[in-house]
Amino acid sequence: MVTRLKLEYDGSRFAGWARQPGLRTVQGVLETALRSVLGERDDEGEPLQLTVAGRTDKGVHAWGQVATYRDEPVAPERLQALLPADVSVLCCEQAEDGFDARSDALSRTYCYQVLARRRPSVFMAATALWVPRPLELAALQECAALLRGRHDFTAFTPTDTDHVRFERDVIDARWKADGELLQLWIEADTFMRHMNRVLVGTMLQVASGRRSIESFAALLQGRPRAEAGPTASPHGLALASVSYPQRG
Amino acid sequence: MVTRLKLEYDGSRFAGWARQPGLRTVQGVLETALRSVLGERDDEGEPLQLTVAGRTDKGVHAWGQVATYRDEPVAPERLQALLPADVSVLCCEQAEDGFDARSDALSRTYCYQVLARRRPSVFMAATALWVPRPLELAALQECAALLRGRHDFTAFTPTDTDHVRFERDVIDARWKADGELLQLWIEADTFMRHMNRVLVGTMLQVASGRRSIESFAALLQGRPRAEAGPTASPHGLALASVSYPQRG
Repeated sequence: MVTRLKLEYDGSRFAGWARQPGLRTVQGVLETALRSVLGERDDEGEPLQLTVAGRTDKGVHAWGQVATYRDEPVAPERLQALLPADVSVLCCEQAEDGFDARSDALSRTYCYQVLARRRPSVFMAATALWVPRPLELAALQECAALLRGRHDFTAFTPTDTDHVRFERDVIDARWKADGELLQLWIEADTFMRHMNRVLVGTMLQVASGRRSIESFAALLQGRPRAEAGPTASPHGLALASVSYPQRG
Repeated sequence: MVTRLKLEYDGSRFAGWARQPGLRTVQGVLETALRSVLGERDDEGEPLQLTVAGRTDKGVHAWGQVATYRDEPVAPERLQALLPADVSVLCCEQAEDGFDARSDALSRTYCYQVLARRRPSVFMAATALWVPRPLELAALQECAALLRGRHDFTAFTPTDTDHVRFERDVIDARWKADGELLQLWIEADTFMRHMNRVLVGTMLQVASGRRSIESFAALLQGRPRAEAGPTASPHGLALASVSYPQRG
């Protein structure tokens, strides 16, 4: 049996999604909770483990992460009772046979939050990048429009990355403004490591008048990492949602 | 000289605004910070102290609190360096002679946040009341419409209160919905103790089908406290803003 979990978590105190010995990770605390209810082994006799739609880095949040495991569902309230307060189980239900959170995902949508105002915020300190200087929203929107479509994102992922293909299909990308809060919403088939954060770090250079739109556009043609901007802090980023094919 | 402060704070770990011996209060931490910069005495030789637009209770937040003191402004960055992370100084600037944050305020606007969904939220746990049952938005909106105008709010404040006048002028009141997040925005000249929280506790009864609109309407005519609903938790409430006359 395959079970599908939908999760929300505050990444602030996690060393990312992926289990790592000796570190507090989202996968780690969830697998520990699931194993204490369902046992160490899954339906197929293998160690019970989670497959995830989007592996998030240290400090990155999730509003709608999806993960699967091969065993029966657990009532969300019961699982929640075994979890720390920075993970919330939104849903835990049986999926179709063979369903896999990672390989069946059609796209992932991330949201990066920037708080553009003179003074820091008490309430958004953990979930938005505070930028205490004016940002040109129109410039951000021009950059986002350039992202749509297929591009070579070599400039936006670390040089030592293990990716073999550097092209990605950006389905949608747009900045939305609600008062002082600016959000980049970006949807793609898959993302490379740090890609959204380097995109934001570079777009903020354009929005501050420190880089031209033309320079940003040129980076989308496979320029080296060194030509792009800095990697924006992980705490502004959240995996917002994952899309799957409609069930027949 | 009069200085006007604009403040944001997370009320979770404060015993409210008002200074109390031995307790951590917003007024307490601010006055300590101001006195360490400006000295113990204000411009008039009195102990330096703050006058506030809206005294918030234990656990209540503020997005736009206003306070005044009789001495010179301090640069927000400098004051912030002396404050804990759950208070943010948005503004600190000279005001007109004689300006007083409390007596000059024309109205206060509060926002009460309710998160209506099956599972709790990691991100809004400290700032919205989680209600894991269906709420009828139209019923909430009908209640809010009834609040506008002058009413006797005796039913919505504790019996042992020290208020002498129980009528209040509600300038505006409306519920707004953004997905699962419901917000009551309410503006009045002044509010009585617990008034917004008892209003929300009672409106939620109507929205859950446990009280009629007619019963809610009757409460606005000076009924006793015992006939209204429970006092909703303080953590959903925030003082959103304070309005003052335009400067000539």
